[in-house]
Amino acid sequence: MYEVKVKIGLKKGISDPEGANTLKALQLLGFMTVKEVKTIRTVDLLMDGKNKNDVKNKAEEMCQKLLTNPVIHTYDIEIIEK
Amino acid sequence: MYEVKVKIGLKKGISDPEGANTLKALQLLGFMTVKEVKTIRTVDLLMDGKNKNDVKNKAEEMCQKLLTNPVIHTYDIEIIEK
Repeated sequence: MYEVKVKIGLKKGISDPEGANTLKALQLLGFMTVKEVKTIRTVDLLMDGKNKNDVKNKAEEMCQKLLTNPVIHTYDIEIIEK
Repeated sequence: MYEVKVKIGLKKGISDPEGANTLKALQLLGFMTVKEVKTIRTVDLLMDGKNKNDVKNKAEEMCQKLLTNPVIHTYDIEIIEK
């Protein structure tokens, strides 16, 4: 069994309205030391596979087909054997 | 300057409809080896602070006031000095 962590962030130059609004809200609450807020989604998968390489290829395919939008997202795949 | 990563997940027993729907969609696409999908949000903050402890306390306060809902979320704070 493998645990696959797919971290999905935004490409440079793509606006992050959720992050911007969180920053605004934190500053309104008095947290003036916060300078920047970014939001990242992580999809945590539990899957079977022959080996780490096979799992990595499957995860790449999932990212391209469903998990991310390649126009705006960057992603990073981390695989942990269980 | 400190980078603060706040990982926000769901408490045990709280349903994760986004994860459940992602699992369903992946299986419909033929990825039958995927057994479980969980979604985690990470809020990545860049902030000033006197020391690591001060930053940690501020981050805890932010989690309780704005970033998380303590009824359904668990969170984990990681601090990196920059």
